[in-house]
Amino acid sequence: MFKKLLVEFIGTFFLILTVGLSVFSSGSGVIPAIAIGFVLMVMVYAGGHVSGAHYNPAVSLAAAIRGALSWKDLLPYWVAQLIGGALAAYIASLLVVVTPAEAQAKFCIPVLIAAEVLFTFALCYVVLHTATDKDTEGNSFYGLAIGATVTVGAFATAGLCFGAFNPAVALGLLTMGTACWKIAGITALANLVGAALAGYVYKLTANE
Amino acid sequence: MFKKLLVEFIGTFFLILTVGLSVFSSGSGVIPAIAIGFVLMVMVYAGGHVSGAHYNPAVSLAAAIRGALSWKDLLPYWVAQLIGGALAAYIASLLVVVTPAEAQAKFCIPVLIAAEVLFTFALCYVVLHTATDKDTEGNSFYGLAIGATVTVGAFATAGLCFGAFNPAVALGLLTMGTACWKIAGITALANLVGAALAGYVYKLTANE
Amino acid sequence: MFKKLLVEFIGTFFLILTVGLSVFSSGSGVIPAIAIGFVLMVMVYAGGHVSGAHYNPAVSLAAAIRGALSWKDLLPYWVAQLIGGALAAYIASLLVVVTPAEAQAKFCIPVLIAAEVLFTFALCYVVLHTATDKDTEGNSFYGLAIGATVTVGAFATAGLCFGAFNPAVALGLLTMGTACWKIAGITALANLVGAALAGYVYKLTANE
Amino acid sequence: MFKKLLVEFIGTFFLILTVGLSVFSSGSGVIPAIAIGFVLMVMVYAGGHVSGAHYNPAVSLAAAIRGALSWKDLLPYWVAQLIGGALAAYIASLLVVVTPAEAQAKFCIPVLIAAEVLFTFALCYVVLHTATDKDTEGNSFYGLAIGATVTVGAFATAGLCFGAFNPAVALGLLTMGTACWKIAGITALANLVGAALAGYVYKLTANE
Repeated sequence: MFKKLLVEFIGTFFLILTVGLSVFSSGSGVIPAIAIGFVLMVMVYAGGHVSGAHYNPAVSLAAAIRGALSWKDLLPYWVAQLIGGALAAYIASLLVVVTPAEAQAKFCIPVLIAAEVLFTFALCYVVLHTATDKDTEGNSFYGLAIGATVTVGAFATAGLCFGAFNPAVALGLLTMGTACWKIAGITALANLVGAALAGYVYKLTANE
Repeated sequence: MFKKLLVEFIGTFFLILTVGLSVFSSGSGVIPAIAIGFVLMVMVYAGGHVSGAHYNPAVSLAAAIRGALSWKDLLPYWVAQLIGGALAAYIASLLVVVTPAEAQAKFCIPVLIAAEVLFTFALCYVVLHTATDKDTEGNSFYGLAIGATVTVGAFATAGLCFGAFNPAVALGLLTMGTACWKIAGITALANLVGAALAGYVYKLTANE
Repeated sequence: MFKKLLVEFIGTFFLILTVGLSVFSSGSGVIPAIAIGFVLMVMVYAGGHVSGAHYNPAVSLAAAIRGALSWKDLLPYWVAQLIGGALAAYIASLLVVVTPAEAQAKFCIPVLIAAEVLFTFALCYVVLHTATDKDTEGNSFYGLAIGATVTVGAFATAGLCFGAFNPAVALGLLTMGTACWKIAGITALANLVGAALAGYVYKLTANE
Repeated sequence: MFKKLLVEFIGTFFLILTVGLSVFSSGSGVIPAIAIGFVLMVMVYAGGHVSGAHYNPAVSLAAAIRGALSWKDLLPYWVAQLIGGALAAYIASLLVVVTPAEAQAKFCIPVLIAAEVLFTFALCYVVLHTATDKDTEGNSFYGLAIGATVTVGAFATAGLCFGAFNPAVALGLLTMGTACWKIAGITALANLVGAALAGYVYKLTANE
């Protein structure tokens, strides 16, 4: 269990570190979307065989609903992910100059909720089908599919929401001063709703 | 069969949602071409083991000609794909502001037909060889190959046609007001012609 | 043999069609480099199990030196590739407006030769190690590796040469009026030199 | 052993050649980050089965700590890598016009050290988990994961450091006049520190 939590910590740490550094050095655009999708992919490939490589409380929730993570492990996973995310956001804010006033975007709340629910659903649906399904066991594409889903979501929802799809990212954005408490909280809740939906839709669509 | 149709609905829904959102937030350019190729890839990897992951009436036609889909399943597949595509286009138009007058591009019809036929042919040829051929069974690259073909087609035909390569995309563009009835219809027909050609050329080129 | 030549014709056709269309619609830059690498990748994944998926006389030469293609098949492969390339270039020039005067870049000949030799060597070295070596048999990455090599070469040699790495591309550039006879010929010869070097270096580096 | 050193020489040569050419033709930005990640990927896929495909003294150090490279082979690997890197940098400087004064960026040294340590750690952690762990043996994704880590690092640390993550790259930057002795030396040392950390953290996180 210590190994699993350490792997979840490391993966979430580098995910949020990349979010923080790439957003502040490159703004919102092509580079962060690709960098964030790629870092998720590489950390999924590196840690998948140890912890399942969630790096995202929403994914852990979907995995618990699907039966790929025991419910009693859910809380420790969440804690490891949130500590990794908050620490990475803090380090990113030390390495680069953050201007919160500029960074805080204005979003239309119902559109933000719809966008975060839809693409967190897509992310968890892809995770469950490519990384936990017996039909696709032993494949070499799960990391690519999971990472690319985040890149797609970032491109598709640009300007509509933060493109977090992950409560640990929402916490990271809060830590760096990019999101306020209200938006970070709504984003995290929308992510968990999308994840729960994906857990149930997975059960409807899987062959098992 | 319900599972297969649900998977086709979900995959086509996210494909057209990404088309709609990324085109309206980023214009025509690098981002939609990559986002659309990536979303097709991830949905192919997620749903391939359930429904074959066509998400495209032209691909279903090519699969039927090749013998990978029974002819009696063709119509239900088309219906699930077209409902998913139209619903996604409607939701995309709620989330972003669409200005049809601006969006409607002028194309030279014979060039549009040639471009849509050629790259729908390429798409279906790649699908049949990488996802339905015994020689390549068990490979981990089919989703990457299929998604990348759409990215290539979008880059190569920029300015010549809508780069649909898929009647469900043509319907989505019509639903969002980006294409008129005439151009959407011509595009969809050109897609089916390219798919039929690919079905027959597959039979000429496969080892089986 | 007919199947193999048809597959070589189709793959080279789409490779050169993408070269022609993406260069003329997007100029030299990120888009053609990615589009051309991707189209090579998808055609390699689609046709690899039938013909070996060379789509390039230089690769066929390297394969012959390495013993993966019989010497008597080399000429038919070259003919199928060159017909596919020339036809695609002709069709591309019908679909888009080509302005040869503008398109013809000035290169420093010794730098052009060095750049074409170096990256054709890299391309053939990657092909031989990932697609013809027993150690890596059954892998799912050969198409990605081969396609990405062309993208790398295009990025690295931008402004130094045409980034052809393939005599069929040189012929296509000549057909579209982008390259003159002299530069196309020098490019094609440099490609064959790089390929021959790779054939011999492969033998030095392979475990077999 | 000769084969292994030749493969390390060739791979490091093309890695540093691509660094040199793409940085000087495209500046720091999207293109070098993608080109460098891709060239590492293709050379890892090409040479992994022969030498382990390190192309990086820091990776060889991490592999030695983990037990995937014998300690007596470490020095010959380093020599082959450094010769390949220096030669490539020299050839790149012949092919393109280098203006050292312009190229020399100013970095904040503690930030540079943190950035180089963090992402060299990530690179070596990914290499050890995807290319040397029994759990992931026979996968087709190790090259993609390793190459993409470098792209992520380059995007995330843009403006903070050279994004070398590799002493052979540091030597290459010195050879081309892009980095001075002091910065190249600090970079190389930071890379070795990150690699050593990854070697020990791998042992904590691996299932073996």
